[in-house]
Amino acid sequence: MATAENKQVVLKRYVEGAPKVTDMEMKIGKIELKAPKGSGAFLVKNLYLSCDPYMRGRMRNFHGSYIPPFLPAQPIEGFGVAKVLDSDNPNFKPGDFISGITGWEEYSLIHDTSQLRKIQPDDSIPLSYHVGLLGMPGFTAYVGFYEICSPEKGEHVFVSAASGAVGQLVGQLAKLHGCYVVGSAGSSQKVDLLKNKLGFDEAFNYKEEADLDAALKRYFPQGIDIYFDNVGGDMLDAALLNMRDHGRIAVCGMVSLHSFSDPNGIHNLFCLVPKRIKMQGFLQSDYLHKFPLFLEHVTENYKQGKIVYIEDMNEGLENAPAAFVGLFSGKNIGKQVICVARE
Amino acid sequence: MATAENKQVVLKRYVEGAPKVTDMEMKIGKIELKAPKGSGAFLVKNLYLSCDPYMRGRMRNFHGSYIPPFLPAQPIEGFGVAKVLDSDNPNFKPGDFISGITGWEEYSLIHDTSQLRKIQPDDSIPLSYHVGLLGMPGFTAYVGFYEICSPEKGEHVFVSAASGAVGQLVGQLAKLHGCYVVGSAGSSQKVDLLKNKLGFDEAFNYKEEADLDAALKRYFPQGIDIYFDNVGGDMLDAALLNMRDHGRIAVCGMVSLHSFSDPNGIHNLFCLVPKRIKMQGFLQSDYLHKFPLFLEHVTENYKQGKIVYIEDMNEGLENAPAAFVGLFSGKNIGKQVICVARE
Repeated sequence: MATAENKQVVLKRYVEGAPKVTDMEMKIGKIELKAPKGSGAFLVKNLYLSCDPYMRGRMRNFHGSYIPPFLPAQPIEGFGVAKVLDSDNPNFKPGDFISGITGWEEYSLIHDTSQLRKIQPDDSIPLSYHVGLLGMPGFTAYVGFYEICSPEKGEHVFVSAASGAVGQLVGQLAKLHGCYVVGSAGSSQKVDLLKNKLGFDEAFNYKEEADLDAALKRYFPQGIDIYFDNVGGDMLDAALLNMRDHGRIAVCGMVSLHSFSDPNGIHNLFCLVPKRIKMQGFLQSDYLHKFPLFLEHVTENYKQGKIVYIEDMNEGLENAPAAFVGLFSGKNIGKQVICVARE
Repeated sequence: MATAENKQVVLKRYVEGAPKVTDMEMKIGKIELKAPKGSGAFLVKNLYLSCDPYMRGRMRNFHGSYIPPFLPAQPIEGFGVAKVLDSDNPNFKPGDFISGITGWEEYSLIHDTSQLRKIQPDDSIPLSYHVGLLGMPGFTAYVGFYEICSPEKGEHVFVSAASGAVGQLVGQLAKLHGCYVVGSAGSSQKVDLLKNKLGFDEAFNYKEEADLDAALKRYFPQGIDIYFDNVGGDMLDAALLNMRDHGRIAVCGMVSLHSFSDPNGIHNLFCLVPKRIKMQGFLQSDYLHKFPLFLEHVTENYKQGKIVYIEDMNEGLENAPAAFVGLFSGKNIGKQVICVARE
């Protein structure tokens, strides 16, 4: 029976404030590259791992949420793309590629196949896109835009964290739908990508705007119909002032609220009544029955060159902690991915 | 041609903070008790006038809302019940009773008949109910509960400002719908009315609760499905922490936000995402096509004794400013109405 070294990223301790690289550490374990008989599990080699903002919630010692916390001294878990090496599950065979929840380690023994699916490698689509464009973040964009925002052609759409894993697809879906789309991001390089690569009508660097309300008034002189909110905080407050009657706000990640209590508070909710605004939080996992439709829509548009996707690829598992922490300072440009192995 | 004295309540100046009695003043004008030929208008004698929180918005010098501000030195406008004395409009005849927007004065000449309707006096229903139970506040309760909250039998419903013009009907509709209903109010007398007259399952005095979160956890150990929010502010923040998955928040008046910018801010919007909460502002005027259904439903239940309604009746136009100002300190018990004349 083959036994291998297994590099792992483990959570050292529960995190209160912003996560730091030192909240995680590398360990080297050993693993049998075999799925135990009768376990129903399968053994995978992890190829690509996904850094997603929601994971910060699992680093807290809080059990009341929709997903339990990580266990200290255990490998971090997250979405990934992996290749099956050995299997005791008849639905997964050696050589299969899968996308779903796996461990931040070189090899994982997978028992839980909920939210896990087999993927067909396709030369025209990078494998890593299955944790981005064609994975949870892409599906979040799709669900949030179509199911929560009820978009109409010609409507005015604002996307925050617009060059991120979710935002970049929201903007492109909105453009394909015939909307006017403006994105905000945190650097001139990101703004440039939004305008010149991702096809947004306009984009701005929120860090250069002393007055977010004034910035939104400049780009939306007639107001915003749809705000796809990836950040919460001051940007949400400014957007509320600029919503049109019957506007919709899809509340997605709220990176700035991942402090779990907005320190400044939101002051402009009084706008909800006179403007009849609907504000709705959502989780992509409630809509998995729509996943096949999503895959078809996005894959087709990608192959026709109508959708592009920007990844921030980090080589090597040892760079995973820094890549993850960088999410919360906006260091990443595009979808933050870790390449553990190419195949 | 009969000319009469016409007592009026006029707005002295635009208001910034909380309205004070001295922001209004009594004037005595003169009016011809006749509708000018060719005007299409009609002349009414005002019987009952309604004090509603939204009117504070019209006391500000702000033109960007769904309804324009009052004009200084002119009579305040609001919902009322009136009797037609003379008419140049073929649809309204002397002796007709109407409910709709009129002036805070003894007699008004009415040009605008939008949101105005004829009412049939009915011995079993007080005329004044047409600005409360059967008027805008009642319809607000109906629309907010059925159209915005999508209630299901057995769900857990929380209503703030629960003994007010809107809240008292929300709670009763929810009980009729088979829900568990808890209300909050600002005095033990109101709490008593909620439990013993209005049929709420439970009620509490928010002024006696040092920790609103703890209070809600006491009454909703399994969480809140529907929050009908009449106040905003700290109560909204506490409710967010206690919502169940897929909860709905109907954002109605936000009396505490009638300061037009919440001073403390709302800190718990991070709950929207993991709990998939929908929060929606609304105006009853968007749903006027449902008004006949509402009237039928509420009238029938009232006549069967299944709905009751509490009014805080103030005698005399000269008491209108104090009655209105009292709304914002919670002085009223039930729907705040001014009786100008009994017929």
